[in-house]
Amino acid sequence: MTTNRLKPGQTIGIIGGGQLGRMLALASAELGFTCHIYCPEENSPASQVAHQTTCAAYEDLDALAQFADSVDVVTYEFENIPADSIATLTAQNTVSPPARALAVSQDRLDEKTFIAALGIAVAGFHDITDLDSLTAALAQTGGQGILKTRRFGYDGKGQWRISPSSDLTAILDELDGQPAILEALINFEREVSLIVARDAAGHVASYAPIENVHKNHILHQSTLPAQLSTDLAAQAEQIAESLATALDYVGILAIETFVTADGLIVNEIAPRVHNSGHITQDACTCGQFEQHIRAIAGWPLGDPTAHSKAMMTNLLGDEVDDLAAWDSAPATRVHLYGKAEAKPGRKMGHVNQLIK
Amino acid sequence: MTTNRLKPGQTIGIIGGGQLGRMLALASAELGFTCHIYCPEENSPASQVAHQTTCAAYEDLDALAQFADSVDVVTYEFENIPADSIATLTAQNTVSPPARALAVSQDRLDEKTFIAALGIAVAGFHDITDLDSLTAALAQTGGQGILKTRRFGYDGKGQWRISPSSDLTAILDELDGQPAILEALINFEREVSLIVARDAAGHVASYAPIENVHKNHILHQSTLPAQLSTDLAAQAEQIAESLATALDYVGILAIETFVTADGLIVNEIAPRVHNSGHITQDACTCGQFEQHIRAIAGWPLGDPTAHSKAMMTNLLGDEVDDLAAWDSAPATRVHLYGKAEAKPGRKMGHVNQLIK
Repeated sequence: MTTNRLKPGQTIGIIGGGQLGRMLALASAELGFTCHIYCPEENSPASQVAHQTTCAAYEDLDALAQFADSVDVVTYEFENIPADSIATLTAQNTVSPPARALAVSQDRLDEKTFIAALGIAVAGFHDITDLDSLTAALAQTGGQGILKTRRFGYDGKGQWRISPSSDLTAILDELDGQPAILEALINFEREVSLIVARDAAGHVASYAPIENVHKNHILHQSTLPAQLSTDLAAQAEQIAESLATALDYVGILAIETFVTADGLIVNEIAPRVHNSGHITQDACTCGQFEQHIRAIAGWPLGDPTAHSKAMMTNLLGDEVDDLAAWDSAPATRVHLYGKAEAKPGRKMGHVNQLIK
Repeated sequence: MTTNRLKPGQTIGIIGGGQLGRMLALASAELGFTCHIYCPEENSPASQVAHQTTCAAYEDLDALAQFADSVDVVTYEFENIPADSIATLTAQNTVSPPARALAVSQDRLDEKTFIAALGIAVAGFHDITDLDSLTAALAQTGGQGILKTRRFGYDGKGQWRISPSSDLTAILDELDGQPAILEALINFEREVSLIVARDAAGHVASYAPIENVHKNHILHQSTLPAQLSTDLAAQAEQIAESLATALDYVGILAIETFVTADGLIVNEIAPRVHNSGHITQDACTCGQFEQHIRAIAGWPLGDPTAHSKAMMTNLLGDEVDDLAAWDSAPATRVHLYGKAEAKPGRKMGHVNQLIK
């Protein structure tokens, strides 16, 4: 296929104004592009560094259409964009990653079904609509599992751990009729994420797998590269390439996996740059943000090779007030997001440290 | 001394809107600062990525005073700022690097005198005011030398190579009464620049020396590290520390030197981030732009250690239209400046390539 390569000075449109949008905007600028942010918030982290911002609701179809019409390509930094809004954007302009990837990742049942159909291992899953379907599913999973809303869950929100002693009625009350799935428990050793890029011409480039440690369901630290056997590393690359190709993907795709005795099991995918990929900014020649912009701009992919081993640590809430703690650490780079208020658990920044 | 450490969200004020201002603004953003640009041009490279711009002349003292009053620290990306303007800025706020460094670097006679007084080797130089002083100077330099205006020269402009056959009257006509110096010719092997940082507490950190190749008086390629003997490398570090300390410097100081049979000879200094330092963006943990912002913001210096060898190539004029030439080069990163018009010789961007 012929790809339309954007020229320096053309405009990248980004839906969403958070830290991912901010770092995408900074990467756009390094490549000479102009950046236009669309988000409802005034003075968002991304707007602070972008040439232009449209402040409007994600449901405002007129504003979205006008925005899409005024930029040269549209991308997004979060996956919970309403379907009507995406339809409006795609009617006006190229949206990358493609709408199908967004739709699949927005719904845990569709996501798991899609991944499993490619022959890629996922945790056993069951469609849950009521107490009967939940009881039937639990009979197959030994009375245990994790109940998750099909849509809009993140960082542990919208999830209930179920054991034989759980009060199912109370949990379903909390669920309040939202469509859900029950996932079988996975006995895993470690969590590893795969960050993969695919360009408009179909080339795929994987970063080295990244090992993640969570605290309170929020990413705490990432290490690149993850310690994986040669077999698992090959499986990781195959999974990443298979998913990116099946979705006819353009941009950065993040894939969260569990390392188990039976190999890698995919937990979920995110059709965007990802917190665990922040480490690529300082460990690799071309980090995930630049890589994403290159791909959606119709450029060939950059070199994802790591020049250094590295560790990333998220700065949550008031941890950002203690930057001096990092002053004497060698080979560190601090990245902050321009957020005014350090609410508990809020992602305020991260620190990448190269490891000798 | 106690240093006032700026907090994330505070505002860096930058005088000048070119590519150096742009890359300083991007580095500010990575550290969570807000950036306010002051420059006369609309839609400058720096403004495109900054939160705010004041569009006004560099001689507009009212606008400068208001600007300085509205930001938390002032820095600059070029050295030809009028003395009155700097005086106005320093009356309102901290200006880093200090005004003295700017004054010294603005005048080749003051600059050479200052450097020589520190016991650092420079090319022989003579104050030139008229034909008599020029003739007297040439008698001491074997009838040869380079006549340079004391102020405002760059990239070979304002310079005349003089040999015994030169028409001195014609050259002095071109000089048109501008104060000038005659510099003795230097027989040098290579050109090496030293990029050094000093923080507000007086700590000094040098980058590895960088070897430069010019074409038509404009920087073409830089390589990090320069090939220097242990003795010359030690001399380089001593020169850099001595100059930064003598100027009570805060920020990045660039020092251009010649490698000669007698050791390093300083050609000139620039009180700012420097084109030859662009290579540190991708070869070192903390590049020159972030390092400058850290220093002027009262932060401790970042780690200047190189994780890779690297080469930088400037993209001049329409070379920027041939980006595809770099597509297949491994370990490269392209940096573009958001300039609309690719005039001949204009610095449009640069490419950093890591060398295995």
